[in-house]
Amino acid sequence: MSNWHGTVTPPALARLLRTARLPEPIGSHRPAYRALAGQVQQLISEGRLPVGTRMPAERELATALTLSRTTIATAYETLRTEGYLRSRRGSGSWTALPEGSRPPGDALFPLPPEEHGQVIDLGVAAPPAPQQLLAEAAAHAVELLPAYAGGHGHYPSGVPVLREAVAQRFSERGLPTTPDQILITTGAMSALDLVRRTLVRPGERVAVETPSYAHVLQALRSGGVRLVPVPQRREGPEQLPDWDLDEWQRVLRGAAPKLAYVIPDFHNPTGTLIDERQRRELLAAARAAGTVVLADETMAELAWNTPEPPRPTAALDRSAQVVTVGSAGKLAWGGLRVGWVRAAPALIRQLANERVHHDIATPVLEQLICATLIGERLTEMRSLRLEQLRASAGALLPALRERLPQWRFAEPNGGMTLWIDTGGLSGAALARAGERTGVRIAAGSRFGVDGAFEGYVRLPLTVPPAAAAETAERLAATVALADRDGRAAWPGEVTALAV
Amino acid sequence: MSNWHGTVTPPALARLLRTARLPEPIGSHRPAYRALAGQVQQLISEGRLPVGTRMPAERELATALTLSRTTIATAYETLRTEGYLRSRRGSGSWTALPEGSRPPGDALFPLPPEEHGQVIDLGVAAPPAPQQLLAEAAAHAVELLPAYAGGHGHYPSGVPVLREAVAQRFSERGLPTTPDQILITTGAMSALDLVRRTLVRPGERVAVETPSYAHVLQALRSGGVRLVPVPQRREGPEQLPDWDLDEWQRVLRGAAPKLAYVIPDFHNPTGTLIDERQRRELLAAARAAGTVVLADETMAELAWNTPEPPRPTAALDRSAQVVTVGSAGKLAWGGLRVGWVRAAPALIRQLANERVHHDIATPVLEQLICATLIGERLTEMRSLRLEQLRASAGALLPALRERLPQWRFAEPNGGMTLWIDTGGLSGAALARAGERTGVRIAAGSRFGVDGAFEGYVRLPLTVPPAAAAETAERLAATVALADRDGRAAWPGEVTALAV
Repeated sequence: MSNWHGTVTPPALARLLRTARLPEPIGSHRPAYRALAGQVQQLISEGRLPVGTRMPAERELATALTLSRTTIATAYETLRTEGYLRSRRGSGSWTALPEGSRPPGDALFPLPPEEHGQVIDLGVAAPPAPQQLLAEAAAHAVELLPAYAGGHGHYPSGVPVLREAVAQRFSERGLPTTPDQILITTGAMSALDLVRRTLVRPGERVAVETPSYAHVLQALRSGGVRLVPVPQRREGPEQLPDWDLDEWQRVLRGAAPKLAYVIPDFHNPTGTLIDERQRRELLAAARAAGTVVLADETMAELAWNTPEPPRPTAALDRSAQVVTVGSAGKLAWGGLRVGWVRAAPALIRQLANERVHHDIATPVLEQLICATLIGERLTEMRSLRLEQLRASAGALLPALRERLPQWRFAEPNGGMTLWIDTGGLSGAALARAGERTGVRIAAGSRFGVDGAFEGYVRLPLTVPPAAAAETAERLAATVALADRDGRAAWPGEVTALAV
Repeated sequence: MSNWHGTVTPPALARLLRTARLPEPIGSHRPAYRALAGQVQQLISEGRLPVGTRMPAERELATALTLSRTTIATAYETLRTEGYLRSRRGSGSWTALPEGSRPPGDALFPLPPEEHGQVIDLGVAAPPAPQQLLAEAAAHAVELLPAYAGGHGHYPSGVPVLREAVAQRFSERGLPTTPDQILITTGAMSALDLVRRTLVRPGERVAVETPSYAHVLQALRSGGVRLVPVPQRREGPEQLPDWDLDEWQRVLRGAAPKLAYVIPDFHNPTGTLIDERQRRELLAAARAAGTVVLADETMAELAWNTPEPPRPTAALDRSAQVVTVGSAGKLAWGGLRVGWVRAAPALIRQLANERVHHDIATPVLEQLICATLIGERLTEMRSLRLEQLRASAGALLPALRERLPQWRFAEPNGGMTLWIDTGGLSGAALARAGERTGVRIAAGSRFGVDGAFEGYVRLPLTVPPAAAAETAERLAATVALADRDGRAAWPGEVTALAV
């Protein structure tokens, strides 16, 4: 049984292999087939090579890596024996995990509940709920439930009160919106997945900022879609990046992608806020190329370090070419799993028809809760959230600067994440060391395409101020461990595979 | 912008066209291009040709229908002008709906809330909630929420208490199950979609019973999967069908599908219960073919007409080859959107990793509600539901027999649906007439592959007993209207397109 995660081409696999470092072998020299098998195993374990990816044919990989066919064949056989590869006669080989394995050592995959509390989880950038507000909104929603419970409870476009509340919020932010321009989904991830599924066909391209939100990059790759990365432009690791409009122009003209996926408002992971001038330029270039701009506003309300947040990107849109996705996750709570799409009514109807065949509709109770939280309780909730983010950043950033001076970062404009240049230390190595020091870290390579950003990590601004010092302490211990293990050198080190 | 719904081949389109009847033309003879355009428009409007389907090239369709190229070209141009076709130079043409259209006259798509109460909705076979029980379970869940709200709320595999409750229920039914064999999803539809996405690659085949649940047939077609229909076997319209094992053997051996999707327990739409002997035979044949059996248990607890429901299909499984999908929708309430997958732990982990990129997780509050409803309140809830189904069937079936003696059906073993042979009247014609008599009807052709079951309709057993007579009355009026409109003759009538 294999996932359809696509195929990794020989050049892409070669690039990935360059990012997988093994510890020094004990005793005699490590044979090349063992080095290759070890590196592939590492990539799979870390989730950088997804389970169910089809591996290149042995002959092609031998050419790409300039190794003998026997070396490749023996490496594949080793992986098969150890459970990291499954083959079907005449069909090829797919990556796998051995029976009994945990999910890939993947800090972006939430810790199983039984492990909560044992480690400091810096992998998932999602906040705890505003307890009192949530409890009140939930109790109120339960009172409203009987009005819905007499029917079948399926609302593929969303319950009307929430569509109205979401439309109202857009209007308040400077983008007049009616409820028929809104579709409610089960979180922003569902919304992005639905848009991709509806607008992009296998083999077509989606342009993405890099870095970008790791899970979305993976979701966008589904169904045979090709990602075209457009690196953000930055002057140095202590400046916030912005868009490289020259590169965007080149990509839009040259690759004619169906979609351009961007997070202009408090970007995940860099926390940057793109100014209106750059947004207009991107829209103009996208319009010329016939590309739909998919604007992710999941962080847009988290303006804790920006006095005047800008209007929504779609407010600059003259030709119904911007599709906006938002959610209640970062403002209220990710456990509610409520998101939305804002688009032209015809596309909203099309999306509703499409989602009926995937999850039918979003649960009713959560929608009622969100209608309260982003409606009459919005001001209260946002104040709480911004206060929490300011406090978290206010304690964590200084603590990091003190205990880890070699780590460089820019203070974000807002949002919920901190993007850190580790000064040469592999993010994946840190993540591995963190498994021993009791801290889960999101390695930067997950936020790029093809192994970029290896020397970065992402931290969430959800650490309570009281835990900032301990968190910085544990991170420092993790750095020391990773250094000592000799997995530190990056980049440029020559390995046994001179690719 | 187009949905990736795939391509309709010339032969498949020809078959569909045979099922689309137009009323007699007024005045002079209708030109062939107008007949063709009218039939395509009807198929799109009824949802039998999905929006976003790529149409055959004009040349190929001309050959398949034995019509001139000019006729096809003019038909396509007519459809384009009227908004039912969109073309891209050099790329082809896709079906569409004109701007401002409602979703296809599709009784399986829930009525927009503003139309609730104006019509008798017999399209969606999903029950109202057990009000008191739901309110109590929801209030209890809100009390438990604070224990979860302090964390990020993302549980890709499901909250532990619900995984335990679902596992416990399987064990009670005779299939020992541990929580690590359970994944919680946002409804059974999400579960089926996730399994398809994880196990089946584009171009591969899934064998399905026909008839089967319409939305699932559509979901399984996603991603370029090919459906291989295996018609149920029945002696007459007043007998319940069962499986045609000879046909299953042929299909499994010949087509080697990756999945076989079956609803053995109170089938949707026929209500039939497959006996243990037939299940064993299917499993043996599937094992020999390497096919995974995907058993849909969404109706399995609805044993209102069966004293001793059988053990779950997976209890007969010796080689981890059965994947089971269930949900709380029919027993409790579809508005909760909670479903699950039961499978080997390794596959559960793989599914959890895959779903993270699609909807991340299922909302927490609904899971807590379901844990109560299918745990300590199960007996109570099930009694209520079975009582309601018995009462509904006990009133509706006699009312139908009295007012519509030409309609033939078998009394179901259980479940929530009634499958009716209309005695020659087109289900689609009835659905159209129902738009005028104020009753939404699910046309049988939606429950087959390639337009089969045109002469059938599906009714839900959710009609309150007090409404049975009125419902039968309105259905009789609908039949009279459809007959009078001359859209009745079926099958065998020769049209202008002699295909």
